[in-house]
Amino acid sequence: MKGLFAKLVEIGNETKALWKDDPRRVIHALKLGLTLTIVSLLYYYRPLYDNFGVSAMWAVMTVVVVFEFSVGATVGKGLNRAFATLFAGGLGAGAHHLAALSGRVGQPIITSIFVFLIACTLTFMRFFPSIKAKYDYGMMISILSFSFVSISGLRDDEIFLLLQKRVSTIFLGVCVCLIISISISPFWAGQDLHNRIALNIEYLALFFEGYGSEYFKTLQDREANKDENFSQSYKSILKSSGIEDTLYNFARWEPGHGCFQFRHPWKQYLKIGALTYQCAFRVDALHRNLSSNFQLSQEIRAEIQEPCMEMSMESGKTLRKLVSSIREMNQPTQAEIHIHNSKAAAKKLKASLKSSRMWENCDLLTLIPAATIGSLLIDVVDCTEKIAEAV
Amino acid sequence: MKGLFAKLVEIGNETKALWKDDPRRVIHALKLGLTLTIVSLLYYYRPLYDNFGVSAMWAVMTVVVVFEFSVGATVGKGLNRAFATLFAGGLGAGAHHLAALSGRVGQPIITSIFVFLIACTLTFMRFFPSIKAKYDYGMMISILSFSFVSISGLRDDEIFLLLQKRVSTIFLGVCVCLIISISISPFWAGQDLHNRIALNIEYLALFFEGYGSEYFKTLQDREANKDENFSQSYKSILKSSGIEDTLYNFARWEPGHGCFQFRHPWKQYLKIGALTYQCAFRVDALHRNLSSNFQLSQEIRAEIQEPCMEMSMESGKTLRKLVSSIREMNQPTQAEIHIHNSKAAAKKLKASLKSSRMWENCDLLTLIPAATIGSLLIDVVDCTEKIAEAV
Repeated sequence: MKGLFAKLVEIGNETKALWKDDPRRVIHALKLGLTLTIVSLLYYYRPLYDNFGVSAMWAVMTVVVVFEFSVGATVGKGLNRAFATLFAGGLGAGAHHLAALSGRVGQPIITSIFVFLIACTLTFMRFFPSIKAKYDYGMMISILSFSFVSISGLRDDEIFLLLQKRVSTIFLGVCVCLIISISISPFWAGQDLHNRIALNIEYLALFFEGYGSEYFKTLQDREANKDENFSQSYKSILKSSGIEDTLYNFARWEPGHGCFQFRHPWKQYLKIGALTYQCAFRVDALHRNLSSNFQLSQEIRAEIQEPCMEMSMESGKTLRKLVSSIREMNQPTQAEIHIHNSKAAAKKLKASLKSSRMWENCDLLTLIPAATIGSLLIDVVDCTEKIAEAV
Repeated sequence: MKGLFAKLVEIGNETKALWKDDPRRVIHALKLGLTLTIVSLLYYYRPLYDNFGVSAMWAVMTVVVVFEFSVGATVGKGLNRAFATLFAGGLGAGAHHLAALSGRVGQPIITSIFVFLIACTLTFMRFFPSIKAKYDYGMMISILSFSFVSISGLRDDEIFLLLQKRVSTIFLGVCVCLIISISISPFWAGQDLHNRIALNIEYLALFFEGYGSEYFKTLQDREANKDENFSQSYKSILKSSGIEDTLYNFARWEPGHGCFQFRHPWKQYLKIGALTYQCAFRVDALHRNLSSNFQLSQEIRAEIQEPCMEMSMESGKTLRKLVSSIREMNQPTQAEIHIHNSKAAAKKLKASLKSSRMWENCDLLTLIPAATIGSLLIDVVDCTEKIAEAV
C-alpha cells in the first residue's frame, strides 16, 4: 500500500516535470482531445456501422493517427494519408476490375499476385532514404488501401462509391485536424528548428564567456566558487543531434508562418547545426581539460592567459552576435569585428608560443594541457568563423 | 524523354546499391508480401463488408501496420496493438454502457466528455519517456479503440460480439506475422545490436592498428601511398549513435534466439556503445591531427615515435581481443595483457616527456601536435580499459 502511494507520488512528480519542461505538451493533449470530440460528434448521429457508413469510422481514425505535435508533421501525415488512399484506391479498383475479368476461379489468384507485387515493391521503396524522409507513411497507407479495395467482393460501381466516401471522410478529418492545429496556439516545427539552432549557439557562447576566467582561476578559487552552469548547457547539443533532422523534415511541409515564408531555406539550419555540433566537440575537449584540475605554473599562466582569455571572450561575443542576428534574421555584420579580434588573439598566442624561451625550465607534462587548450581554441576560432559564414 | 531515361537509370542504380548494402531488405519486402497475401486469401471467401465482417478488415490492417523489419519490433507492435484493443475496447464498452443510462439526450454529452478525457490523458502519457520507448503505439491504438467502441450506436451485446471478433482477428493477424517473421530467415534486433557494437569496436581497432605507422610516415610517403581506408570507417560510429537505442528497445521484446537468452543483458551493450562513442570522439581528434599534415622534426619524432606507436598498436590489439570475446561471448582475459602493455607505453611516454631536455631547441608550435597526440593516446588507453571492464 505504501509502495503504491510512493509510486503515485513519483508519477505525479514526473508529470509535473514534463509539464514544466514544455507546457505545450498539455496544450497538445487538449487540442487532440477537442478535435477527436468534434469529429466524434459529427458522426454520432449517423449510424456508424451500416453498410457504407463504415467509411465514417475513417474520420475518427484519421484524427487519432494524423494529429501530431507540430503543424508540419500533421500536414505531412495528412497529405500522405489522403493522397495515398486516393491513388492506391484507384489502382486497387483497376486491379479488382482486371481480376474480375478472369472469372470466379482466376480472380483470387490474379488478385493475390497483384497484392503480393504491390506490397513487395512499396515495402522495398520505403527503404529509399528520400522516400523514407517524406513519404514513409504514405507508402504504408498505399499498401493498405490497395489491399482493401482489390480484395473486396464488391461491384465496380460500389467500389467507386466506397472510395469516394472514404477519401472525402479522410479529407474532412485532415481538415479538422489542420484547422484546430493552426488556429489554437500552433506549434511550428520551423519555428522550433530556428529556436533550437539559436539556443545551441547561445549555449556555446555561454561556455566561452565563462571559460576563460574559469580556467585561469586558481584551484582554490574554483572550488570555493563552483559555477558549473555555464559548462553543463553545451552538453545538450551533443545529445540532440537527431532532433534537427526530424524538425527539418516536418518544417518542409509547413506553409509560411510568422516571419518564415514557404520554402524558407531550412537546409541552411541543418548546415549551421552540423557546424555547431562540430564546435561542441571541441568544447567538450576543452571542458575535460578544465575538470582534470591540472594546475598551471605561474610562468606559463602569465604567458598564455591574456591571448587565451581574449580568444575565448571574443569567440563568445562572436557567437552572441550570431545568435541575435539569427533571431532577428539579418546579416551578421556586427560579428565580423569580433571574429577579427579573436583571430588576432590566436595569432598572438601562436607568436608567443613560438618566441618564448621561458618554457625551457619547466616540466613538459604541465605544458600539455596549455598546448592542448591553445590549439583547441585556435580550432574554435576557425569554427566560429565558418558558422558566421553560414548564417 | 532522355531525362526520364536518365532518371530511371539513376533509380535502378540506387535500388542496386540499397540491395547490395543490405540484401535483407529485399527478403523483408518479400516476407511482407507473402504474409499479406496469405491473410488476404484467408478472408477472400468471406464477404468482407457485411455487418460484422468489417472486423475481418482488421487482419489485413494489422499485417500492414505491425509487420516490421526485426522480430522484436514486430512482437512489440503486435502485443501493443492486441492488448490495447482489448483493454481500451473493454473500457469503451463500460463508458458506452454508463452513457446509455443517461438517456437519449444525455448520452452524446457524456460520451463526448469520456472521449475527451481519455484522449487528453493518453496523449499526454505518450510524452513520458518510459512509455514512449515501449508503449507509444499501444497508447495510440487505445485512443482509437476507446473512441470506436464508445461512440458506436450498438447495443451492449453487439458491442461484446464486435470486440471479441476484432480482438481475435488482430491476434490472428499478429500470429501470422510472427510465424512468417520468425520462420523465414528471421532478423533479430538483438543480433543486430550485438553485431553493430562488435563492428564499431573493430572499426576503432582498425584505426589504431593503422594510425601509428601512418602518423610517423614522412609526408612524401604518406602522399605517395594514401591509405585512407583505416581512417574512414570509424566515422560511421559517430553518425549512428541513435540506432543503438532503437535496436535496444526492439531487442527487449524478443524471445530467446541463437546464443541469446530472453532477458539477455541488452543494457550492457548500450553502455559499451556509449564508451565506444566517447572513444570515437578522441579518434576523430587524432585523425584531424593527421590530416593537418603537420611535419614533426626529426628529434621529436625519434623521442615519441616508439611509445606512441606502441600505445596505438596495443590499444588496437586490446580492442581486437575485445571484439573477438564479444563475438564468442566469453570473458576478455586475453585483452588484459595488451591493456597492461599499452599502460606501460603510456607511462614511458609520460616519463620521456618529463625528462627530455632536447625540446629546448625546437619551435614550440611543432610541439603542440605531438603533445596533443600524446595526451589523446593516453586518454584512449583509459577508454579502452573502461570498455574492457564493461564487456
